[in-house]
Amino acid sequence: MSQQVERYVHLKSLIDVRLAAIIQRDKPETMYTPARYVLEAGGKRIRPVLILLACEAVGGVLEHAVDAGVAVEILHNFTLVHDDIMDNADQRRGRATVHKKWDTNVAILVGDELIGIAYKCLLGTPDGDIREIIDVFTDGMMEVCEGQSYDKEFEGQVRVTEEEYLMMVGKKTGELVKMSAELGAIIGGATPAQRAALISYARHIGRAFQIQDDLLDVVADEKEFGKVIGGDIIEGKKTYLLVKALGLAAGADLEVLLHVAAKGETRPGLVAEVTDIYDRLGVLDTAREQIRRDTDDAIAALAELDETPGREMLVWFAEMLLRRNF
Amino acid sequence: MSQQVERYVHLKSLIDVRLAAIIQRDKPETMYTPARYVLEAGGKRIRPVLILLACEAVGGVLEHAVDAGVAVEILHNFTLVHDDIMDNADQRRGRATVHKKWDTNVAILVGDELIGIAYKCLLGTPDGDIREIIDVFTDGMMEVCEGQSYDKEFEGQVRVTEEEYLMMVGKKTGELVKMSAELGAIIGGATPAQRAALISYARHIGRAFQIQDDLLDVVADEKEFGKVIGGDIIEGKKTYLLVKALGLAAGADLEVLLHVAAKGETRPGLVAEVTDIYDRLGVLDTAREQIRRDTDDAIAALAELDETPGREMLVWFAEMLLRRNF
Repeated sequence: MSQQVERYVHLKSLIDVRLAAIIQRDKPETMYTPARYVLEAGGKRIRPVLILLACEAVGGVLEHAVDAGVAVEILHNFTLVHDDIMDNADQRRGRATVHKKWDTNVAILVGDELIGIAYKCLLGTPDGDIREIIDVFTDGMMEVCEGQSYDKEFEGQVRVTEEEYLMMVGKKTGELVKMSAELGAIIGGATPAQRAALISYARHIGRAFQIQDDLLDVVADEKEFGKVIGGDIIEGKKTYLLVKALGLAAGADLEVLLHVAAKGETRPGLVAEVTDIYDRLGVLDTAREQIRRDTDDAIAALAELDETPGREMLVWFAEMLLRRNF
Repeated sequence: MSQQVERYVHLKSLIDVRLAAIIQRDKPETMYTPARYVLEAGGKRIRPVLILLACEAVGGVLEHAVDAGVAVEILHNFTLVHDDIMDNADQRRGRATVHKKWDTNVAILVGDELIGIAYKCLLGTPDGDIREIIDVFTDGMMEVCEGQSYDKEFEGQVRVTEEEYLMMVGKKTGELVKMSAELGAIIGGATPAQRAALISYARHIGRAFQIQDDLLDVVADEKEFGKVIGGDIIEGKKTYLLVKALGLAAGADLEVLLHVAAKGETRPGLVAEVTDIYDRLGVLDTAREQIRRDTDDAIAALAELDETPGREMLVWFAEMLLRRNF
């Protein structure tokens, strides 16, 4: 295991330990049993690790960013619980989603409660201006909700431009990544230039991460991915691949893609068919190139920071996200 | 119009004006059109007016409590939007609920976004320790979610004790009323004794308010109430009336009440039948007495405060809630 992997695993475990202990209550049972189920489901903990790394990279005390890290991870989990209801998703991280295992009412309430738990956690942050920290956190939460709202609106539209797609994912996925870097910067006492650099870094890895996610939906291994392959195609999601492909396709290919985009009936073999179209149109490669470019730009933004082991970790982190297959 | 009514209307308008201007964005449309719809629906604005009155009654600057008042009202509206989904309610304040007028996904997201808007508003508060203010606010929000969770659990139980009922409504309804008084006290710079007195006052009026709500479900005028009469009976809600009546009924009456409590099929005339049982068992009177007692206790708690016009307004406020028929 490389030194960086070891460090990532260590930081991830700091978060996991805190998450496992965060819920102290047992009743009401239909609230706290599913809430625990969600928080103990594992996950990559990318956002909280980013907070810790950003804090450290600007010379802050890493431990002071743990509360904010846990808060962002809980907020992220709130969005997953509610999004899974809206997307009618059966599985998450290889297990039944909350609304499937319990019911929709439970999932709505557990998501709501997780927001409260996240704020409680955030309030534990010892450094930085707490008013500013909560302001950034709240802005991020609202942007994520807007992003999900656009995502659902786009499901009802056949055509979505690449610009609209990037705006939507910038809110839905990018915002929490950006918020993580920004909170780490604030808590670590970053200069305005360092803060801006970390935000730019996060914007790029956030976008790369989402495009990677869209790509993995068609090329990943189902078991490692923890979700059904081709789920986005079946759902008619406006992904990077679909939006790009719609701009390039013609004839029978275009017909198939429009059928997907219009959320038409699914049929056996549709996922393989669409994946083949993506491949032939070159959008899988275009996606890979965009991910590479965003990762490079993210790393370039770090030049603003001093050359420290913390900065090196951020470089490794961006590369690690690029190589992930989960 | 009495001086107090005039003052209440004035304070309410301060809140209404702010609420009408709070949403500056138009897009995504499926987010902000329904969010505006909710915030402009009117309502008694009891919680924010209580914040203002509590702040004033301890000698604080009323204007400094407006942001917190608006925040609590928005938080209250979030709970209504999500509760209406869970309760499958068609109407609220005489209009279609969000999930009926739009859909469940929209209602989930709008509720989530309202939480964010509420926190943003709260952050505008100029006085008091913002960390403490946000802590109290977040605790309140979590308690409300727990209350709703218990409420849904109780729907699945035939028997609920009076103690369980009071615990549940203490969270679901009482908590936001208590939080309002407490935030007003904090922002107004209350002494610990004043703060405790205001919390006690709020606990009593909060309980009276909920029992009144349960009572109005069977005795109110549908148009003034803005909800369908007997809705709680049809839903099999464990109300103060039902819980009390189940403890007193026997024979055919008990059978009918158990049918309601078990959420059995509704039938024409069931609401009138159950209302008649409540009347014969005296639980309508018991409810009225309990409301009167809680109102008296609330007013008695105010003895801790200096004799000011602000305190007089709180006395009037408790009496006004007792007399309401909406």
